[in-house]
Amino acid sequence: MTSTPPDSPAMVLIPETELGDIVQRALARMGLAGAHVQAIAKVIVSGQRDACQSHGVYRLISCFDAVRAGKVKLDAEPTVSITGGPIVQVDAQFGFSPLAFERGLPALVEATRRHGLGALVIRRCFHFSALWPEIEAITAHGLAALALTPSHAWVAPAGGNQPLFGTNPIAFGWPRPGPYPYVFDFATSAIARGDLELHRRAGKSLPEGCGVDAAGQPSTDPVEIARGAMLAFGGHKGSALATMVELMAGALIGDWTSQESLAFDDGAGVTPCHGELVLAFDPAAFSGGDGEAQTARAETLLDAITAQGARLPSQRRFAARERSQAEGIAVPAALYAEILRLVS
Amino acid sequence: MTSTPPDSPAMVLIPETELGDIVQRALARMGLAGAHVQAIAKVIVSGQRDACQSHGVYRLISCFDAVRAGKVKLDAEPTVSITGGPIVQVDAQFGFSPLAFERGLPALVEATRRHGLGALVIRRCFHFSALWPEIEAITAHGLAALALTPSHAWVAPAGGNQPLFGTNPIAFGWPRPGPYPYVFDFATSAIARGDLELHRRAGKSLPEGCGVDAAGQPSTDPVEIARGAMLAFGGHKGSALATMVELMAGALIGDWTSQESLAFDDGAGVTPCHGELVLAFDPAAFSGGDGEAQTARAETLLDAITAQGARLPSQRRFAARERSQAEGIAVPAALYAEILRLVS
Repeated sequence: MTSTPPDSPAMVLIPETELGDIVQRALARMGLAGAHVQAIAKVIVSGQRDACQSHGVYRLISCFDAVRAGKVKLDAEPTVSITGGPIVQVDAQFGFSPLAFERGLPALVEATRRHGLGALVIRRCFHFSALWPEIEAITAHGLAALALTPSHAWVAPAGGNQPLFGTNPIAFGWPRPGPYPYVFDFATSAIARGDLELHRRAGKSLPEGCGVDAAGQPSTDPVEIARGAMLAFGGHKGSALATMVELMAGALIGDWTSQESLAFDDGAGVTPCHGELVLAFDPAAFSGGDGEAQTARAETLLDAITAQGARLPSQRRFAARERSQAEGIAVPAALYAEILRLVS
Repeated sequence: MTSTPPDSPAMVLIPETELGDIVQRALARMGLAGAHVQAIAKVIVSGQRDACQSHGVYRLISCFDAVRAGKVKLDAEPTVSITGGPIVQVDAQFGFSPLAFERGLPALVEATRRHGLGALVIRRCFHFSALWPEIEAITAHGLAALALTPSHAWVAPAGGNQPLFGTNPIAFGWPRPGPYPYVFDFATSAIARGDLELHRRAGKSLPEGCGVDAAGQPSTDPVEIARGAMLAFGGHKGSALATMVELMAGALIGDWTSQESLAFDDGAGVTPCHGELVLAFDPAAFSGGDGEAQTARAETLLDAITAQGARLPSQRRFAARERSQAEGIAVPAALYAEILRLVS
């Protein structure tokens, strides 16, 4: 779900700690409890640091809209259920997701180390962040991870033309030697919802195959597609994956599908409220005893991708991260001014 | 991985038991031990019954080629390791996969019921069947399942043009009330390898986007693509999923990647030898206590797909199954004659 805006606005460079401070102040002004402020700021600053414009500082606006709509519990205290088995369950109590994930993570890591694989189920959270920050938090413990969430019913199944699925991201991570894991995080829709919004704001057309208008006819107009339906990537295969996300991160875990999340939103137009399923795998438990061979095999594969000039997912993000660490975090100047007004 | 041949040859209708008997005799003639004969015949007959031409009786030929190449152990006795934890490991001992799966299944079901989720790791097997028979064997126990395997290095990563990934299928199943689960099983390549072969044999072109020639240029010629590389479905997203399959069902489980499987094949051109990862989920453990709501939510979703005229994956397969049960199993007449010669 990394994405860049259709235009490239003027940027200002802000040191990470300064940006973190401003984002925290903005979140605190919205009335969020301290623990939520910390957890959300971390995710937003990470997004901006990695040049994910649609998951960076821009998300303060969605956050603000969600808070103003009055459905998010600003001081929700997530409750973590640990049974000693491989499944850890967190009830986010209708708060934002980052704190719920943070609270569940230690138990997920412990369960995964103990059993070889583990699952983190988060229920009843407002989810506006990308999944890769969660994936990277797990790979940092030397574990592999797979995460799924529904969103709002915006995407038609292949062969249909009525919105039913969310943009339903799938994210996966594999720990690597060195600072960066292998990570992907993509919407099962042809484009991310954030991209649709950015194109709409910029008045630009989308590529073919991203959606249909309200009459079910193919369209490249983001306004028409927003009234009609987005499409899944990769035809019936992407549509099948989107269905799997609804079943596994909706029905299975006893939380809402994207259609129910949209019904709950009831026209407020805020960030989706639903659950999340995260699976984690301890390489040591699966390796058949040879961890070195396991790492070497994965590295051989990943090196063979880049050796032929292909890119690894997240490579651009990690390059941006290094630039941010060296020069400060680039923020669109107009957006930065807007944020400063929020906190002044 | 359901597929139909590019032409529709004349068919003969054979009762299921009769076809099973002929397939078993053909397999026994190849020198396979009795338990393997039973397990493989079941999978091949299921494929033909469901009108999956590329995974039906046609597979006797790949089976025969693999046996003749002398690498498959015909009387391999799979060993199952059960620790009481959620991970069940099967060493197929270089035999065909269906028996290894059959031997591991009861322990996987038990582990999944006990822990809420389970994993079946199969190592060192020759894998020529589709994944949906395995998925359906798990959903028959009321569990959801996800299965991944590498294959042979035939597919280039997005942005590259050298073969590296296998066709790397991903299959998923969700148990439903009534006789049929929700099941998908697709190659992460734009087309299945079987489809490439069928087009090559029929001298027909493939659609755009399926592959590149040996010089890395886009091609629709199955012969040129077989010399060059196949492509992943859905661009960089499909390519990322194919990478995940190599990492999870190769590196993670301590078995070969598609590149290593092809190296082991060493020009013999037979069915790939590698591992497999199957995850299973007990809906009862994840539901938060309300199994009825869980089922109802999934059914509402799936009904909303078909209500708008979209098809569920495997729907065509299940329709063929009902025809087969009523009328006998349709087998291409020429292929049937070839099989009869094999056993006469």
